[in-house]
Amino acid sequence: MSPLPPLAAIPHDLVAACDYEQRARAHLDDNAWAYLQGAAADELTAAANVDAFRRRRLLPRVLRDLRHGQTRCRLFGDEFEHPLLLAPLAYQRLFHPAGELASALAAGVMGGGMAVSTLATCMLEEIASQGQRPLWFQLYWQGERERSLALVRRAEAAGYRALVVTVDAPLSGIRNREQRAAFRLPPGIAAVNLDATPEISATAGGSPIFAGLMGLAPTWDDIAWLRARTRLPLLLKGILHVDDGRLARDLGADGIVVSNHGGRVLDTTPATLDLLPAFRAALGDRFTLLVDGGIRRGSDVFKAIAGGADAVMIGRPYAHALAVAGALGVAHLLKLLREELEACMALCGCADLASIDAGYLCPG
Amino acid sequence: MSPLPPLAAIPHDLVAACDYEQRARAHLDDNAWAYLQGAAADELTAAANVDAFRRRRLLPRVLRDLRHGQTRCRLFGDEFEHPLLLAPLAYQRLFHPAGELASALAAGVMGGGMAVSTLATCMLEEIASQGQRPLWFQLYWQGERERSLALVRRAEAAGYRALVVTVDAPLSGIRNREQRAAFRLPPGIAAVNLDATPEISATAGGSPIFAGLMGLAPTWDDIAWLRARTRLPLLLKGILHVDDGRLARDLGADGIVVSNHGGRVLDTTPATLDLLPAFRAALGDRFTLLVDGGIRRGSDVFKAIAGGADAVMIGRPYAHALAVAGALGVAHLLKLLREELEACMALCGCADLASIDAGYLCPG
Amino acid sequence: MSPLPPLAAIPHDLVAACDYEQRARAHLDDNAWAYLQGAAADELTAAANVDAFRRRRLLPRVLRDLRHGQTRCRLFGDEFEHPLLLAPLAYQRLFHPAGELASALAAGVMGGGMAVSTLATCMLEEIASQGQRPLWFQLYWQGERERSLALVRRAEAAGYRALVVTVDAPLSGIRNREQRAAFRLPPGIAAVNLDATPEISATAGGSPIFAGLMGLAPTWDDIAWLRARTRLPLLLKGILHVDDGRLARDLGADGIVVSNHGGRVLDTTPATLDLLPAFRAALGDRFTLLVDGGIRRGSDVFKAIAGGADAVMIGRPYAHALAVAGALGVAHLLKLLREELEACMALCGCADLASIDAGYLCPG
Amino acid sequence: MSPLPPLAAIPHDLVAACDYEQRARAHLDDNAWAYLQGAAADELTAAANVDAFRRRRLLPRVLRDLRHGQTRCRLFGDEFEHPLLLAPLAYQRLFHPAGELASALAAGVMGGGMAVSTLATCMLEEIASQGQRPLWFQLYWQGERERSLALVRRAEAAGYRALVVTVDAPLSGIRNREQRAAFRLPPGIAAVNLDATPEISATAGGSPIFAGLMGLAPTWDDIAWLRARTRLPLLLKGILHVDDGRLARDLGADGIVVSNHGGRVLDTTPATLDLLPAFRAALGDRFTLLVDGGIRRGSDVFKAIAGGADAVMIGRPYAHALAVAGALGVAHLLKLLREELEACMALCGCADLASIDAGYLCPG
Ligand SMILES: Cc1cc2nc3c(=O)[nH]c(=O)nc-3n(C[C@H](O)[C@H](O)[C@H](O)COP(=O)(O)O)c2cc1C
Ligand SMILES: Cc1cc2nc3c(=O)[nH]c(=O)nc-3n(C[C@H](O)[C@H](O)[C@H](O)COP(=O)(O)O)c2cc1C
Ligand SMILES: Cc1cc2nc3c(=O)[nH]c(=O)nc-3n(C[C@H](O)[C@H](O)[C@H](O)COP(=O)(O)O)c2cc1C
Ligand SMILES: Cc1cc2nc3c(=O)[nH]c(=O)nc-3n(C[C@H](O)[C@H](O)[C@H](O)COP(=O)(O)O)c2cc1C
Repeated sequence: MSPLPPLAAIPHDLVAACDYEQRARAHLDDNAWAYLQGAAADELTAAANVDAFRRRRLLPRVLRDLRHGQTRCRLFGDEFEHPLLLAPLAYQRLFHPAGELASALAAGVMGGGMAVSTLATCMLEEIASQGQRPLWFQLYWQGERERSLALVRRAEAAGYRALVVTVDAPLSGIRNREQRAAFRLPPGIAAVNLDATPEISATAGGSPIFAGLMGLAPTWDDIAWLRARTRLPLLLKGILHVDDGRLARDLGADGIVVSNHGGRVLDTTPATLDLLPAFRAALGDRFTLLVDGGIRRGSDVFKAIAGGADAVMIGRPYAHALAVAGALGVAHLLKLLREELEACMALCGCADLASIDAGYLCPG
Repeated sequence: MSPLPPLAAIPHDLVAACDYEQRARAHLDDNAWAYLQGAAADELTAAANVDAFRRRRLLPRVLRDLRHGQTRCRLFGDEFEHPLLLAPLAYQRLFHPAGELASALAAGVMGGGMAVSTLATCMLEEIASQGQRPLWFQLYWQGERERSLALVRRAEAAGYRALVVTVDAPLSGIRNREQRAAFRLPPGIAAVNLDATPEISATAGGSPIFAGLMGLAPTWDDIAWLRARTRLPLLLKGILHVDDGRLARDLGADGIVVSNHGGRVLDTTPATLDLLPAFRAALGDRFTLLVDGGIRRGSDVFKAIAGGADAVMIGRPYAHALAVAGALGVAHLLKLLREELEACMALCGCADLASIDAGYLCPG
Repeated sequence: MSPLPPLAAIPHDLVAACDYEQRARAHLDDNAWAYLQGAAADELTAAANVDAFRRRRLLPRVLRDLRHGQTRCRLFGDEFEHPLLLAPLAYQRLFHPAGELASALAAGVMGGGMAVSTLATCMLEEIASQGQRPLWFQLYWQGERERSLALVRRAEAAGYRALVVTVDAPLSGIRNREQRAAFRLPPGIAAVNLDATPEISATAGGSPIFAGLMGLAPTWDDIAWLRARTRLPLLLKGILHVDDGRLARDLGADGIVVSNHGGRVLDTTPATLDLLPAFRAALGDRFTLLVDGGIRRGSDVFKAIAGGADAVMIGRPYAHALAVAGALGVAHLLKLLREELEACMALCGCADLASIDAGYLCPG
Repeated sequence: MSPLPPLAAIPHDLVAACDYEQRARAHLDDNAWAYLQGAAADELTAAANVDAFRRRRLLPRVLRDLRHGQTRCRLFGDEFEHPLLLAPLAYQRLFHPAGELASALAAGVMGGGMAVSTLATCMLEEIASQGQRPLWFQLYWQGERERSLALVRRAEAAGYRALVVTVDAPLSGIRNREQRAAFRLPPGIAAVNLDATPEISATAGGSPIFAGLMGLAPTWDDIAWLRARTRLPLLLKGILHVDDGRLARDLGADGIVVSNHGGRVLDTTPATLDLLPAFRAALGDRFTLLVDGGIRRGSDVFKAIAGGADAVMIGRPYAHALAVAGALGVAHLLKLLREELEACMALCGCADLASIDAGYLCPG
């Protein structure tokens, strides 16, 4: 059966992110589905991310005056209407013909942010022009410093407002589901912002990983070099060890995204939610802390913030919504999540994000 | 298939609350079922409530003289034959044509209490006249103080003996199951004790939750105002944080119901059973502590009391019994639960409720 | 389908207790099956018993000289070839025409013990004559002291060597599975050692449990009275609280059976295995400690002994074997369990029961 | 259906050990499958081994320079390209006509080691000649010292480089799955390196286990005797208690394999991964520590090394690969596991095995 075309209106029974996930299956072929849903190896971390949010318990307060409640979120000087950003997802035209343009449009309409992937399938300048809101640019290191910097310069020129350097994916991971499905990019869908993929210059017989891919991977020195060359706020995405968080901060990064890449790179890393408090404790109140992985409910956003995050990124859920109904779907999904967040805040007794703290979480 | 009519006699294989739950499905249409069984979001708390009782272990004592054992329970000067109260459940004519009248009748016949919901589908005066026993009135705040007080005055006049103000539901929660089923009240079933639903006066463009619903929600000040205006014993229902329990007590409330509304308002709150000991420790021995959520067995009642409760409320189980066999079903269910409680007390070595303490629970 | 007759030979694929359990279903009708397999309420404790043994981890030692290993077990001066006793199970002619006679025969042949139930369906004198080994008598209190003592006198006269007074079942428990199956004893199967069931003299309207059954239940005073009247070793069966163990010892009992009656009386009591170490610590090395509930493997026997038991009782497994192949089945089951125990001892490095201690169990 | 013949090429969807496991079913008959997949009793330990690796969480570090990363592993003076050894598996011609020859060939081609079982179905001299790499010989004690030593002498002569004495299987365990399947060696498949199986000289009526098998089992004294007679590095395989590890070291063994024999001998022993840290702490940094049981991913190898192992052995997975595609399959499986290990090291920030330590594991 060939996949269904995107819907032009939202059916009444799509009322939560999980509904979009289920519905998306019918709108995607096996190839795209394997790419989108899959994760590394046994996909345990992908499941653990979601599970950690489900297991965490909230301890609400009652009878407070919340008439002036709101969800506004300020990040690097820009204000967003809510703390939900669209995570960088590669190759979005796999999910909908409008690809990243649709996502950026929806994020803007709903007053939220988006980090556009290096592997976008639309020109980054065009994506930037869609947004009513400042966008961020996610950088995959391009093997050489100058090639990487060239991309950053384009992003700066196009008005991107922050740089998210993904550091947890020097190789794409053991994605067994993709391999079994023999995933490949269909003709006409490509990383249009890149000239060509960097050459792997492995010495013959050497390990394709160590002698090959790792030769293209960035190091702390490369990040320091980059830091010195751009005034954009710089975030490192994919940090799981608190000591790496400290290194990032000390090197001049403005923030990090505590992330395991949605479980897509290395399996059996911990659920990100569980790691947040240690990061906040180690890095202090002024350092920007984002988190992603497994966020499926507004209450998950609340829990992430209570755990120490300033804002969150969502990944797969918006690709599901994109597949189901394009920009409309993504906007609707963001609306649902934001309403759930508001409901959660109202029911917990928090009038703004700043009031949300660890006291609202049951210990353990 | 249209739902079966209520039974006129109890089949021999209905021997526990879970049997009523299963049987009830055939007596209710999809609309009523979604409303009754559903809970907020992923319904994790609804399941956790039940699970907490199932996991908690009892440590019985043997060979005591229990010939004079009994289950009597005194609450605010009234004596009940057992500590099982019917929780306030809205719209009971969804489940049986006789609605709240049948429930009140059954509670009275079985020597127990009932808290009648603000959203009852029978006139509160008529319900009061059914009971052989004192009933309680559950108040949903009516947006304005005087509107709320007017309801209280009617309850006082009708002979209700205590006031249960529900504080955990300023909004009805993200009830995805209801949404997916497009739940709506059928014609002829309504909250007959209310003139009209209070208007939401949200400023255009404002958040429907914060600027809208929260404007109608009560605050601690409202509760204090109400406290000063009625001599009825006052309980706050829906407290989960011990500090809110302290606030309630200090403000003059006579008791609280530790409740997460059966998981129907905010998902991923803790199971209520697990919270009880901290409440009892914080609030002292004289403050009335009720609990609801997930009670399905007489041994669950025992555990709640061992955890610190004075009495318990049951919700869905009696709606199931009401759907299956009306007042007869509810009375039979109460009989089963009471017998289970007696059996549990006899087997644990407790001659009365006062003997039940934390020593009968395994730690952890 | 009517149940299959018992087998006359053991098929090769019956190699463990669980095989007998599965096979037994076809040899029993629904009525007997509900009685045998069922437990109280939601049957959580019945499952927890088994699960506790499965979860507990062994820490074996290697390379010891075990050529002279053996499983002998001395209890109250009698020696058994292994520490596996058949627990008292009522109404065994429900499972096989030869009933308790077959079980006693098998226990004797295999060099083990058996506690014969008050509710045996064969005359206790006849059962005693089957055994090549000393049997024990399990006493259910008969409402009045003299009626109870009369039974004890018969047991003494018939040569029973110990008295096991079951104290955890003053009422038979909320056995929902039996109720749903409308279990009843078929014609011709009865507790033939009792004249008549004691009358329940409840005052009209009184609680059938407290004013009725509990009037027939024994108390500590009754046990002390009985203790003074028999020289048989006296065990109390059904103790779960260490303080009751102390009371039993102080009153002159010779031992206890840590038991929750296979989960058949009060649901959600703890798994017995988990309780053993506290009992051993509290009662000292000389007091006889037995345990039952959930033992399905020879390694479970090892774990029980490592936890502090002197010997164990098995219940349902031998009823399964009885149903499948009568005395032959029970003997074969005992052989399997004993071989498993020997294998476990050999693999753990223990040459006799006395060497088995808590050091062979992983903590936690 | 008769089993499929081995494949001559690797299908694209065999991308992980679990794929081989699933595929292998079709290439084996019920008899061989029961033998290969089965474990002792309820097979809980076999499952726990796998589960422990799945549950353990990795804490990766980022942005390190790993261009010169490699997986080399030195054991007793020999260098292997990676730390994956093939565990001794008996009767490999059950899985593929080429049996151990194919496995040894694959191990050699892939630069890894193999321990050849006493129960090999090919001559140990012939197996030794296949390897491009040094092989190890696994010894099952042959009842008498001289018979055992004779085998060792053959192994020495054939060039085996280390001796692995398996100490956890004085009896083959309660293998219910094998029993139910009535497993037997088919004609033409035998332990060709043994003259005859040692006679069990049990005194009539004595326990077949204690008086029989245990009379043939080795003791610490036998190991000491053997130690004095061979200069080969000596490892004891099947140690689970730290104190036995100490005894082994003190007696002059060069290393141990922390192993529960893949759960095949005694059920409900702990997962081996969980035990490693205590062994490393007790035995110091210089003692060789191997581990096996449940390793199915390169990340499992990483975790074992982080837990304290120097190298790991894999068992069933290579038998699956052998069944599916002979030497080619085993080589491919080793390639997959090694690539997964490299990916895991690269993603965790470790350039060599020596850098992998407990800091990469989440506590708990
Ligand atoms: C289909 C897909 C493509 C992704 N592409 C990128 C990418 O190009 N760059 C990046 O930094 N992360 C990428 N990620 C990871 C996401 O940014 C994010 O970390 C992850 O999806 C969060 O987990 P969630 O999907 O559970 O919300 C991708 C994730 C998915 C599912
Ligand atoms: C169908 C339904 C309607 C309810 N209506 C009310 C209500 O009107 N007022 C209120 O305070 N609680 C209401 N509740 C919550 C119950 O009073 C009670 O807290 C909950 O049902 C207890 O959990 P249980 O159903 O697991 O026993 C309702 C619950 C259900 C299931
Ligand atoms: C069918 C059946 C009948 C029983 N009858 C008695 C009895 O008459 N007296 C008694 O003390 N215990 C009785 N018990 C409890 C057993 O003695 C024993 O405590 C329990 O079966 C142990 O658990 P297990 O079945 O998991 O081994 C009975 C148990 C079963 C299953
Ligand atoms: C079919 C089979 C045969 C085995 N034969 C032997 C053997 O001959 N000698 C030995 O020491 N261990 C033997 N083992 C145990 C393995 O060496 C190893 O400890 C175990 O397989 C590791 O667990 P895994 O299968 O989960 O990787 C055998 C295991 C299997 C599955």
